Amino acid sequence: MKTPIIALLTDFGTKDYYVASMKGVILKINPRCTIIDISHQVSPQDIREGAFLLASVFSYFPEKTIYLAVIDPEVGGKRKPILLRTRNYFFVGPDNGLFTLVAEKDGVEWVIELTHSKYFLSPISSTFHGRDIFAPVAAHLSLGVRPQSLGKRIDQWVRLDLKKPEEKGERLIGEIFFIDHFGNLITNVERKRFFSFIKDSPFEIKVGKERVSKIGQGYWEGEKGEVIALFGSADFLEIAVREGNAQKQLRLNRGDPILIERRV
Amino acid sequence: MKTPIIALLTDFGTKDYYVASMKGVILKINPRCTIIDISHQVSPQDIREGAFLLASVFSYFPEKTIYLAVIDPEVGGKRKPILLRTRNYFFVGPDNGLFTLVAEKDGVEWVIELTHSKYFLSPISSTFHGRDIFAPVAAHLSLGVRPQSLGKRIDQWVRLDLKKPEEKGERLIGEIFFIDHFGNLITNVERKRFFSFIKDSPFEIKVGKERVSKIGQGYWEGEKGEVIALFGSADFLEIAVREGNAQKQLRLNRGDPILIERRV
Amino acid sequence: MKTPIIALLTDFGTKDYYVASMKGVILKINPRCTIIDISHQVSPQDIREGAFLLASVFSYFPEKTIYLAVIDPEVGGKRKPILLRTRNYFFVGPDNGLFTLVAEKDGVEWVIELTHSKYFLSPISSTFHGRDIFAPVAAHLSLGVRPQSLGKRIDQWVRLDLKKPEEKGERLIGEIFFIDHFGNLITNVERKRFFSFIKDSPFEIKVGKERVSKIGQGYWEGEKGEVIALFGSADFLEIAVREGNAQKQLRLNRGDPILIERRV
Repeated sequence: MKTPIIALLTDFGTKDYYVASMKGVILKINPRCTIIDISHQVSPQDIREGAFLLASVFSYFPEKTIYLAVIDPEVGGKRKPILLRTRNYFFVGPDNGLFTLVAEKDGVEWVIELTHSKYFLSPISSTFHGRDIFAPVAAHLSLGVRPQSLGKRIDQWVRLDLKKPEEKGERLIGEIFFIDHFGNLITNVERKRFFSFIKDSPFEIKVGKERVSKIGQGYWEGEKGEVIALFGSADFLEIAVREGNAQKQLRLNRGDPILIERRV
Repeated sequence: MKTPIIALLTDFGTKDYYVASMKGVILKINPRCTIIDISHQVSPQDIREGAFLLASVFSYFPEKTIYLAVIDPEVGGKRKPILLRTRNYFFVGPDNGLFTLVAEKDGVEWVIELTHSKYFLSPISSTFHGRDIFAPVAAHLSLGVRPQSLGKRIDQWVRLDLKKPEEKGERLIGEIFFIDHFGNLITNVERKRFFSFIKDSPFEIKVGKERVSKIGQGYWEGEKGEVIALFGSADFLEIAVREGNAQKQLRLNRGDPILIERRV
Repeated sequence: MKTPIIALLTDFGTKDYYVASMKGVILKINPRCTIIDISHQVSPQDIREGAFLLASVFSYFPEKTIYLAVIDPEVGGKRKPILLRTRNYFFVGPDNGLFTLVAEKDGVEWVIELTHSKYFLSPISSTFHGRDIFAPVAAHLSLGVRPQSLGKRIDQWVRLDLKKPEEKGERLIGEIFFIDHFGNLITNVERKRFFSFIKDSPFEIKVGKERVSKIGQGYWEGEKGEVIALFGSADFLEIAVREGNAQKQLRLNRGDPILIERRV
């Protein structure tokens, strides 16, 4: 039998005891589970960032991987704990939109509200459902517990309203929505969208005070310090600086606009 | 047979080769071991912080988990290397007080000074016993080596003198002793202590310039930016800011006082 | 059969989806593989730092460990993807000098240029060969695929020209080439080199404005705040501050010189 995999995504950081408690809980229930960290450095309480990271990575894991994703500002409040089944994967976490993008990409089979406290720790703290509800549910699921026994099917679940690029005449207007470790500015303009807009026309990309008029093939293009545009490994338009840090050099932030102008 | 678990806590950070060397040493001795990181971001040489983290997490792991904890400012000096057995777990590390709180919580069965160099790497560096003594001992233990063969029983071992909250008339005076990734201010006032002091009286909590007079149920209480008091997932009184960072907003640090006033 | 180990070293950081994608790819190909993180915090694009970390840690892992090392500023450009076999280990990554030091220390058996795209992901992005080429190759290798089937033997591969300490009369001139999490300044002066230069003479070490004239045994030597010199756990001369941070106190950086003067 294959070792089940539980992959963790949180905004807990790696300094505290939070992530390790979740791992302890999982291993107590299923000692044979393989636990993988996706990231624990999602910006605090930033559901959108979490949704993007999850969507960029999930399809590279084996089928039936269980994603345990806890960016959960409303913990202990009204939001529901859920298990979402897509075509190929399982997602356990709060119902706050975190699974919007993976649902779009992989297709949703069903969603269960986690209600059977038999599969939770006891007592349940009001501040840490990652440890007390989500981790034990993921672990029981990895052991083969039937999803139906974890709760009841629901039809409504929360989707984020994620901004897509807008077309205005000869302009496509997107925004920076993720900045990676290297300072690369990742925008919400997907490769397909870009090329269906540009077709064969010449173009100019405006970002901050910079202008770029071609798409590079790699981070090594241009001269040292030159601003380049390319499609990153998640297929979004990205602004980088050769051997440098685009965020620092351009002084831009998440939410800042990027304009693509078609020259006709 | 169950896979043995070795759980690591250090102040080594994750940038250098230190943690990975320990993992290599463990896997060379016991390739079937499951290695889990608790945290490697304990403040450098901060034994108290390490003791708190260990105490907040250890009971969530399976019985017989081996904790390999190395916050070790006196490495190569006079402090002893020890193996401490509590009711349910094993702790390997320096005898400098790091195990004070877990010993209190789980009860100590016995303590062994690690003296049998047969279970150490050779040669032993004077600066990195985590790699050269503690990791190989933990790995041998995980293989089933009898604890007695690792060294000799000792009766004296180091306990930290950890500050407990003090009662002065209608005041309970505690302090901030840990600040987490979210900027939540975790104090040394335990839930039990708080309620046995307050009973049914109204109260006021004074922390920096802030006054709070109720205990919240979750981080989502109050308005955005409001200072709230609640009991965190390790059952200590904690000061947080809704959708914010209490450390930054209140400009407080570890060691700063918190006063609980009973209104009579 | 032993569980194969794949050990990862990158400059990707741990915030993004990059490292996790590599792990997903590996587990999809070989779910039984043990994946260990060495570090993902190599300074961006810093091949020298990566080479040093790898050289400091590799020999502590079991024989046949597969090192998957991706510090790859030229990704998608002209540099070759390679598999390097040393006496005891395998190294998969870009041919840019990252393996210079491990090759020196462990001896090279052969080098293969990775050309057989059958063992790559498809399609291959131009920006992330860590995920699309190196991770799948390492995973296939861990499954027992014959190295010869991964590509063709090459005779030329890139070695870094790493600065060694220079002797000028009664002076040995080295430099700081790594600064660890504690702020310890690690130099390129190896223990052997130091003692073969000094022999039994008295000496003075000059680093910044500081002068040290003895070698300490541990970080606990001297008074709090005192600057000390010692040989660290990778056997290089290192400048530290007792219970302090040498980098902050001395305000020195990588590349700054260290002078060892023999008093005759």
